Amino acid sequence: MSDDLTLYVSAFVDELAKTGIEDVVVSPGSRSTPFAMVMAEHPKMRVHMNIDERSAAFFALGMAKAKRKPVALLCTSGTAAANYVPAVVEAYYSRVPLVVLTADRPHELRDVGAPQAIDQIHLYGKHAKWFVDMALPESSNEMLRYARMMAARAAAVAMSAPRGPVHLNFPLREPLVPAVTDQTWEQINEKEASYIQIAIGKKTLDDAQFHQLYKQLSCIEKGLIVCGNMDEPEFAEAVTELAEALQYPILADPLSQLRSGTHTKDYIIESYDAIFKDAAIAEALLPDVVIRFGAMPISKPLLLMLKRHPSITQIVVDGEGGWREPTFTASQMIYCDEIEFCRRLAELGSADRRVPNEWMQLWQDINKLAKEELLEAGKEEEMFEGKVFIELTELLPEKSTLFVGNSMPVRDADTFFMTNDKQIRLMANRGANGIDGVVSSALGASLEADPLVLVIGDLSFYHDLNGLLAAKLYQLHATIIVINNNGGGIFSFLPQARQEKHFEALFGTPTDLRFEHIIRMYDGYYQKVDTWDEFRYYVKHSIQSQGLHVIELCTSRKENVTKHQWLWKNVTERITEFLQKRGRL
Amino acid sequence: MSDDLTLYVSAFVDELAKTGIEDVVVSPGSRSTPFAMVMAEHPKMRVHMNIDERSAAFFALGMAKAKRKPVALLCTSGTAAANYVPAVVEAYYSRVPLVVLTADRPHELRDVGAPQAIDQIHLYGKHAKWFVDMALPESSNEMLRYARMMAARAAAVAMSAPRGPVHLNFPLREPLVPAVTDQTWEQINEKEASYIQIAIGKKTLDDAQFHQLYKQLSCIEKGLIVCGNMDEPEFAEAVTELAEALQYPILADPLSQLRSGTHTKDYIIESYDAIFKDAAIAEALLPDVVIRFGAMPISKPLLLMLKRHPSITQIVVDGEGGWREPTFTASQMIYCDEIEFCRRLAELGSADRRVPNEWMQLWQDINKLAKEELLEAGKEEEMFEGKVFIELTELLPEKSTLFVGNSMPVRDADTFFMTNDKQIRLMANRGANGIDGVVSSALGASLEADPLVLVIGDLSFYHDLNGLLAAKLYQLHATIIVINNNGGGIFSFLPQARQEKHFEALFGTPTDLRFEHIIRMYDGYYQKVDTWDEFRYYVKHSIQSQGLHVIELCTSRKENVTKHQWLWKNVTERITEFLQKRGRL
Repeated sequence: MSDDLTLYVSAFVDELAKTGIEDVVVSPGSRSTPFAMVMAEHPKMRVHMNIDERSAAFFALGMAKAKRKPVALLCTSGTAAANYVPAVVEAYYSRVPLVVLTADRPHELRDVGAPQAIDQIHLYGKHAKWFVDMALPESSNEMLRYARMMAARAAAVAMSAPRGPVHLNFPLREPLVPAVTDQTWEQINEKEASYIQIAIGKKTLDDAQFHQLYKQLSCIEKGLIVCGNMDEPEFAEAVTELAEALQYPILADPLSQLRSGTHTKDYIIESYDAIFKDAAIAEALLPDVVIRFGAMPISKPLLLMLKRHPSITQIVVDGEGGWREPTFTASQMIYCDEIEFCRRLAELGSADRRVPNEWMQLWQDINKLAKEELLEAGKEEEMFEGKVFIELTELLPEKSTLFVGNSMPVRDADTFFMTNDKQIRLMANRGANGIDGVVSSALGASLEADPLVLVIGDLSFYHDLNGLLAAKLYQLHATIIVINNNGGGIFSFLPQARQEKHFEALFGTPTDLRFEHIIRMYDGYYQKVDTWDEFRYYVKHSIQSQGLHVIELCTSRKENVTKHQWLWKNVTERITEFLQKRGRL
Repeated sequence: MSDDLTLYVSAFVDELAKTGIEDVVVSPGSRSTPFAMVMAEHPKMRVHMNIDERSAAFFALGMAKAKRKPVALLCTSGTAAANYVPAVVEAYYSRVPLVVLTADRPHELRDVGAPQAIDQIHLYGKHAKWFVDMALPESSNEMLRYARMMAARAAAVAMSAPRGPVHLNFPLREPLVPAVTDQTWEQINEKEASYIQIAIGKKTLDDAQFHQLYKQLSCIEKGLIVCGNMDEPEFAEAVTELAEALQYPILADPLSQLRSGTHTKDYIIESYDAIFKDAAIAEALLPDVVIRFGAMPISKPLLLMLKRHPSITQIVVDGEGGWREPTFTASQMIYCDEIEFCRRLAELGSADRRVPNEWMQLWQDINKLAKEELLEAGKEEEMFEGKVFIELTELLPEKSTLFVGNSMPVRDADTFFMTNDKQIRLMANRGANGIDGVVSSALGASLEADPLVLVIGDLSFYHDLNGLLAAKLYQLHATIIVINNNGGGIFSFLPQARQEKHFEALFGTPTDLRFEHIIRMYDGYYQKVDTWDEFRYYVKHSIQSQGLHVIELCTSRKENVTKHQWLWKNVTERITEFLQKRGRL
């Protein structure tokens, strides 16, 4: 007969595994010993050790994002749990399911000055969707059922709309070493064989609501579908059907997963950010209705256009029932599964509308012009940051993943990563848009998504250098392209850039770090590239070989702004000319 | 005339400076621009840039701890603020005053899916002593007074007992660049010249209470004074007076600041941890009363002795009115300033008691024997971890600071850092005892406390490698001694060590990192030492030269346990023999 601790923890872990959670990212600690050991013993659970809890949590986040299902996290009591906060916040806002398990001191050691005891009750505040301070281990049938139910609920709550992190805090007393043996699993399944299956439904509208919507939309010609960050595999086909049925162009954020894939790209407009930069052009292209899916896109000009025009009927569709509407101009908020929404509306469409109309043609023409101008950057011999994404569109193989860092890389992906027919999945941490934890998130994703290429700026890379240890310890395969402009490149695009006196010290913040040293420490392959030939060679090579590859491009923050602005100016001029010729401007 | 934003922020920053806060640790960001720029312009404020917010917050913590006064922290909105959590938690439990300023999106951009907007209201939960979601910038006289009052209160609350972190969250709208000029300071001082001075009193008992206490204590011979983590400069003299008046030995934790300094060391017992390891010896040395100051000491045998004997009258003195009592055996909790407590009681003592009695003599004799045995480690030729502290007692110069990492180093400091007459200040992060943020804390302290030597284990060093950037960017002078036993050394002392199947994977967690690479990246001097001659040479050299010096000792976790246990066994045998001879055992 095993003890209370072993049975209780084993029942919990066993149920967690039964919900389909196969991966747990563990940081070393003493108080968490029973969980770490039981998980290591469980036949269906993989333990991924990650020493720095901040990196560990982002690693789990990346893995959960890539797998589209929950990953568990385990740490000991104290600041270990506090280091999870940044990733828990990101998971909350980016709707990534995580099951966070923290070991805690038992009640009698709380708030009495005991070592390594902090207040872990509601440690993640509103950023954990659900918090439970668990009961102390007991092994009555009832308490084993309790442990199982809590595990099942934790996974289900994390996966319920809107998905996100849940937090279970376990008070544990010494002795902490469980007596787990092969018999333990039999014993807990004998004692308490039943477990619960939780079915999670999706939100949908009724027939009348769909008919009403179709009626409303079918008489509006000038419509746009706007897709922000989305990651549902069947969405691309569904929204394409909707676009066809309504003849509405799709403004597709790079994270919408619509720019790559096997669906038709005829309706995809990827250069709207550059197009909308000019207010006069935006005015000439105003829609009457906008149907918006996913998070608010990266593009600020799109946001500003919507804000300036509250008269546009903005319909926000959110299958997870959130409120992603920072424009304050939406007129309809629809809580309905996005795929269901697209398919049901498309089914109602009549065949005669499915022919490109003038509005669609106009957008296609303008997008083509804008793309042509932006792709001029592809001819650049200099190490221009935007060109990285033009090159990657070619270089990335079928079924690869492109993880994009925040700040400049994700904006450059928006501008320069164009439609293609490969199945390339784009990922980024766009919940809170932090530059932290990006290396770990990408490496976590790489376990599921191979090959994976991460494009990241030097400050963001520095912020999570610790994340590289996982690549060393687990021989992960990943290519990291570091765009090193020696500081915070995005600030050069902001009004702060004119504050010469303080700019470099407060915003530019150059670090002059030579990353080759640290890559060596983590057993990675490092390559600085000075030409695009080198870039292409090393990217291809790294994708085909194993291990961690860091490819560094050095760029200039100043030249980068100038080049971007020059390209945007060209887009504006070209489109202005085009619209003027047609009497639209 | 300046605008609302400039005046409001300037009034706040100016008042913060008037409270005596001179240092602010800033991480780059856009939303925080008005504060960063106004602080950079303020004639009395020093801005320390630190890119990784987790390291930034620990850097501020270390500086505040060294200065014994508040340091401000500033970051932008989003996960930047979330990265402060570990250091805020540590500051809360270690009673370090911090004024945390987070920039936030304005109300209309909260919880609507706007970029880089997270819920920053009460982000630090109960770990911030005070939280204010500030008003939007306005420049009426009333609102400038409001800004000033809040700055003054923030500093005062951080410094009020128990000291700790406060959090002010500032919603800020674009445009974010303030128009701060030399005239701004005149203008805000014209507009609103008055500011508030806040005087903070200390808790004290009345005469009758002191008389009552003295009466109680003066008739008890077998008393012990136990001093944990304390950092009040005058405490050493005061508690020595009390020890003399009562003839109670002082069991002094290494962080009590009692083992070094100019006060007499006659009453200081430093080897109680080794002494109490044997339960029979502990029984033979039981006190009737214990007066405890500061945090609960590091020593677990001391804690266990107190827990086993609720009949000991345990008096806990806490000038900041907390509850540092994890033994559940205290019988008196006294909220009175520690220095006042010692002095007032000592004054009541009669002259005839101030002669060493048998009890004091016994403790002095036993401590001498224990020390002799432990100092045998000093003769060790092998790279034994404990010997580091024996060597440092000699090597550290007058008025130096020894920062000690958590897990093993702080325990070895307890065992091997003996009394000396130099003024050596010991520091450690003992609020939550995390292995995180230690490098940054030490480097932050080094700005105030030079020369500074940090002793840290390899996992803890790895955890905060990012902290080293500050040393590079600010040419800080510090010596970091990395005790590299390739993993978590403390686990070898715990029952987990017997779990051979999982031990290395879950607890030992070797990383095989060669730190010389990363030290090169941060422009530091790296030296691996294989002999104690080399160790002495490089420690002396690094203390005398400028810059960052990392001295690495490679040790074996297994041999380390064996050696410790051998030393403790010798202490037990020696004292047992001594006590038996005297018929006390």
